[in-house]
Amino acid sequence: MTIKFCSQCGSEKIELRSPPGDDRTREICGACGHIHYVNPKIVVGSIPAWGEQILLCKRAIQPRYGKWTLPAGFMEENETLAEGAMRETLEEAGARITVEKLYASYSLPEISQVYVLFLAKLDDLNYAAGIESLEVRLFSEHEIPWQELAFATIGEALKRYFADRAEGVYAPHFADLRRTPKK
Amino acid sequence: MTIKFCSQCGSEKIELRSPPGDDRTREICGACGHIHYVNPKIVVGSIPAWGEQILLCKRAIQPRYGKWTLPAGFMEENETLAEGAMRETLEEAGARITVEKLYASYSLPEISQVYVLFLAKLDDLNYAAGIESLEVRLFSEHEIPWQELAFATIGEALKRYFADRAEGVYAPHFADLRRTPKK
Repeated sequence: MTIKFCSQCGSEKIELRSPPGDDRTREICGACGHIHYVNPKIVVGSIPAWGEQILLCKRAIQPRYGKWTLPAGFMEENETLAEGAMRETLEEAGARITVEKLYASYSLPEISQVYVLFLAKLDDLNYAAGIESLEVRLFSEHEIPWQELAFATIGEALKRYFADRAEGVYAPHFADLRRTPKK
Repeated sequence: MTIKFCSQCGSEKIELRSPPGDDRTREICGACGHIHYVNPKIVVGSIPAWGEQILLCKRAIQPRYGKWTLPAGFMEENETLAEGAMRETLEEAGARITVEKLYASYSLPEISQVYVLFLAKLDDLNYAAGIESLEVRLFSEHEIPWQELAFATIGEALKRYFADRAEGVYAPHFADLRRTPKK
């Protein structure tokens, strides 16, 4: 259960059952009938490039405090995917980017998240750690702290990025990332 | 306001303000402090092909009752994008597909939705209208009911699909779809 009270009538009679014509269990108010839908969230971000280098942020927040990540965060209401990627890059890395291509779409079904990462070019070198970052810096491929990356999504995206760069073609791709193998 | 009562403590003291370190207005409980985040939803679906033909569904539900659409719907918790596309295609069109490529990503910022559509091949011709469809049938390009499509996203995806087919390359793409031009 994610809720204890109905958001519409305040009743504490929350029932776990399937609405008519639906085969999924939902949190439904036993008093007013309101269905509290919960859906996956989008994490949107960028792979900001400056020549041969990529900008990474060292996290100043949990989870994965002190680990390195691409600038990314929860997409907000009333913005586009690209706007979200630009906003997160500005918030976390103080950096302005030009979005080029939607590059990676990763499903994380165990935590109901979808990552969407864009290829982007840094507009200039005026970057700086935002409130959620300890440090922001450019990395060449051989400098990437592979063992110190915050999330599997970031390692996957960077691995593909450098492999695609070696091939000369950045191919949009999707993948499913699970901590435990699918049953 | 999307809520009237706190989902965690039941209080009616819901305030619209920004949490510390956040520049967005959120619905926050004045009693227990719980922040009720709201984020965009993902609509996931497929472009199911059978040779030169595409499978469309005539909607049996609002909005756009009686209009034609690709099988698509809200992504659910604990599924992947591809699983969601397969599930929606089975639910709405009674059809089993093999997902090939993540093809279209559309942001609809005015209604906080992101459409993700996959290229797919029908596994067989055993399709049938699900509970949310009046009719399901295959269309050749010249038969597509362009004036009777349910959503702008569907027209955009089909337009790109047939253009790409003529070129011989299906290029994953993203776009922003607004009803009113951006200010």
